[in-house]
Amino acid sequence: MSRVRVHNFSVSLDGFGTGEGQSLEAPFGHAGTRLHEWFFPTRSFRGVQETNGDPGGSTGVDEAFASAWGTGIGVEIMGRNKFGPQRGPWTDEAWNGWWGDNPPFHTPVYVLTHHARPSIEMKGGTTFHFIDASPTDALKVARDAASGLDVRIGGGPSTIRQFLAANLIDYMHIVIVPIVLGRGERLWDGLEELEQHFHVESASSPTGVTHLTLTRA
Amino acid sequence: MSRVRVHNFSVSLDGFGTGEGQSLEAPFGHAGTRLHEWFFPTRSFRGVQETNGDPGGSTGVDEAFASAWGTGIGVEIMGRNKFGPQRGPWTDEAWNGWWGDNPPFHTPVYVLTHHARPSIEMKGGTTFHFIDASPTDALKVARDAASGLDVRIGGGPSTIRQFLAANLIDYMHIVIVPIVLGRGERLWDGLEELEQHFHVESASSPTGVTHLTLTRA
Repeated sequence: MSRVRVHNFSVSLDGFGTGEGQSLEAPFGHAGTRLHEWFFPTRSFRGVQETNGDPGGSTGVDEAFASAWGTGIGVEIMGRNKFGPQRGPWTDEAWNGWWGDNPPFHTPVYVLTHHARPSIEMKGGTTFHFIDASPTDALKVARDAASGLDVRIGGGPSTIRQFLAANLIDYMHIVIVPIVLGRGERLWDGLEELEQHFHVESASSPTGVTHLTLTRA
Repeated sequence: MSRVRVHNFSVSLDGFGTGEGQSLEAPFGHAGTRLHEWFFPTRSFRGVQETNGDPGGSTGVDEAFASAWGTGIGVEIMGRNKFGPQRGPWTDEAWNGWWGDNPPFHTPVYVLTHHARPSIEMKGGTTFHFIDASPTDALKVARDAASGLDVRIGGGPSTIRQFLAANLIDYMHIVIVPIVLGRGERLWDGLEELEQHFHVESASSPTGVTHLTLTRA
C-alpha cells in the first residue's frame, strides 16, 4: 500500500503552521517568511528556483530532510488556503497558484475546495484538480491517480489536521522553528494523544530548528 | 547581577506545560506523568529520591541538562498552583507542598499567592514564604534573599509566562516532549516574538525529547 506523507511542514514553538491574515502579498500572513528561513538556503529549495546548472545551497542536516519531499510521491493533496488567498466562490479563474507557470509539484495536485472549477494543466507535469471531498474520499481519488506511488499531504495546517484526525497519515516530517507566532492557525488542535499512533524521533539542526519525524507505529 | 533562570520545564508539542484538572492525586492534571518521563530515569531525579548511597540513574544528554537545576541558585519563586491544588483562601494550613518533609529546594522559596499565610520552615534548608506581589516586586524580594546567587522561576506555566511577559528571565531550559496534550495551561500564550529577546539553541536527546535553551540576547 502506498504511504500518505507530510514533508517540510514548519510550526512555531506555540504550534502555529501559518500566521494570521493571509493575503496575496503574504501567503503565510503575519508570519512572513519566518517559518521557512531554515528551508531557503537548502540545495532542494535552490534547485526549485534555479533550473539551469548547479543550484548550490546547503547540504547539511536541513537538506537531508528537505530532499525527501519529492521522492516516491505520485500526487499531492492540498487545502484551498495553500493554493491561494481567495475564499468562497471563485470570482476570477485566472488564479493558478503562487508558483508561476512551472510549479514544483510535477504531479497531479488535488485542491480541496467546496467550490468546483475546471482543472488547470501547468508546465512541467503539474495539473491542479479541484475536488469537494472528505479526507477519506480525496485520498481514494488521489491514490487512483498516483500509480502506486505515495500521496503527499501538502498543507496547510487545517488540511493536515483533518487527515490526522481521520488517522490517514503514515509519515510526517515537522520542523519546529524557535519562534513564537502568537496567532494564526495551529497544527495540533483537537489531536489529543496523537502520539499514540506514531513513533516519534527528533534531530536538532545547527541552524536552530528541530526536525521531528512521526512514523506510524 | 544575578540571573533569573528556568530549568527542566517540560511542554508538550502543542505547548502545554501542565494538563487540565489539577488535584491532590494529579499535580499535572490529565497529563499525569507524561510530561516528565524523560526526567525520572536521570541521576539528578534519582538523587532526590535516594538520600543514602549512590542513586544510580542515567548520565546522558537528559542528565546533562537536568543537573544544572540547582547550581548557583539561591532562591526559588513559584506560583501557588505549583505549590498545591488549593484555590482561594487557605482553609487548611496543614498543606506544606507535594514534596514531603525534606523538599528538594534547600533554599528559601517564595510562593506567589493573593492569600497570605505564615512561612513554613521545612527540613533541609527549604522555607516556604507566601507573598502577594507582581513579578518585578517578587523578584526584588527574592534577590535580596539570594545572597548574590541566581533566582530560579519554578513554574507553573502561568508564573513563567508572567515573568517572560515582564522580560525578567535571563535563561530558560525548556524540554519539548513529543506528546499532544490537547488541553491544560499553555506556556507560550501572549508572548508573540518572544524569540527576539533570546538566543535559542536546541539538542535532541535519544530519549525522544528536545532540550531548548533560551539565553538572553
